[in-house]
Amino acid sequence: MSVLPKALNDLIYSFEGLPGVGPRTAERYAYYLVQNDKLISDKLINSLSKIHNSISFCPITFALIDSSQDISPLYADKSRDKKTIAVVSSPFDLLAIERIGTYKGTYHVLGGLVSPIDGIGPEQLHIEELIQRIDKDEVNEIILATNASVEGESTALYLNQAIGERNVKITRLARGLPIGVDLEYADQITLGRALDGRTIL
Amino acid sequence: MSVLPKALNDLIYSFEGLPGVGPRTAERYAYYLVQNDKLISDKLINSLSKIHNSISFCPITFALIDSSQDISPLYADKSRDKKTIAVVSSPFDLLAIERIGTYKGTYHVLGGLVSPIDGIGPEQLHIEELIQRIDKDEVNEIILATNASVEGESTALYLNQAIGERNVKITRLARGLPIGVDLEYADQITLGRALDGRTIL
Repeated sequence: MSVLPKALNDLIYSFEGLPGVGPRTAERYAYYLVQNDKLISDKLINSLSKIHNSISFCPITFALIDSSQDISPLYADKSRDKKTIAVVSSPFDLLAIERIGTYKGTYHVLGGLVSPIDGIGPEQLHIEELIQRIDKDEVNEIILATNASVEGESTALYLNQAIGERNVKITRLARGLPIGVDLEYADQITLGRALDGRTIL
Repeated sequence: MSVLPKALNDLIYSFEGLPGVGPRTAERYAYYLVQNDKLISDKLINSLSKIHNSISFCPITFALIDSSQDISPLYADKSRDKKTIAVVSSPFDLLAIERIGTYKGTYHVLGGLVSPIDGIGPEQLHIEELIQRIDKDEVNEIILATNASVEGESTALYLNQAIGERNVKITRLARGLPIGVDLEYADQITLGRALDGRTIL
């Protein structure tokens, strides 16, 4: 005999499918929705039902776009520099860079990072399309804006190789001390990178 | 100009309505669902759409039940001792006690805890119904299984008062050292309670 109603167990199980959601968190979400007005779960249902019909990927940059758009508005924007591409792993990394407010280039979303452990090879990422863009848009600079993780670094190395002999500057985000973090609390690798990358005052 | 498609922003906003979900977590959930097969979001939609029609509250214990049931199967079960009631705040506290596997009494779900700060007074909880049950089922023991928080303690105190002169033993869960926790890492209040509640070996 199950202690909880079947519909609740089903909902908990569905929530557990989301990344990083364990049984306790799933229970908490489910109970919140059961206890509260139907309007709240209806709103969630409504938003969920729209995503697969009204969200597409830009065929050039692979950013997420409204299905009503042909290409990403950031790429279509004439004021953005098409000769500079920031290469990111996910659309949210793009959002993070946009939030700075000063970047005027365009983006290329890889759709993941090279990770042999998860079975993700370079051919599953939008690398071929990036190479084509470099040639077509006569790109000067590729900014590798990947995470400072093992996967991020291997992807950056792979891209560096794949871009090869092309006459394009390849840069990557600076590694160093984050703003507001005390030197004594920084980890050794970060501190080492900050030392290696020291700049002239 | 929004960088993300509207449908995605809407979904992120809906997820942010869940307890403890901030913008980053909501983005992560939304992106996961966008990236993955429609089947996963359809399953979530399907589970969500059922909760308000097929889940009810037991009119006696206020546990969550299938709408097809009249009363909680735990209460209906003849082998459970109706003269012992564990009073819990939420249906998941009930689940936690059931998981021990040894409790043979019944439950009463209050539906929250007295919390003046959140505007929750005793009249919003199922306390009146608990008093009626005590009289009707000739209850011997009320186990106050509320959290060891300020709200949990005030609710326990209020219940103790409300139950009043009735000939019923009121107990509450022991406070003390959790299993597997080193004495030196226990906080002072827990350790103080463990000392006060020391038992004879």
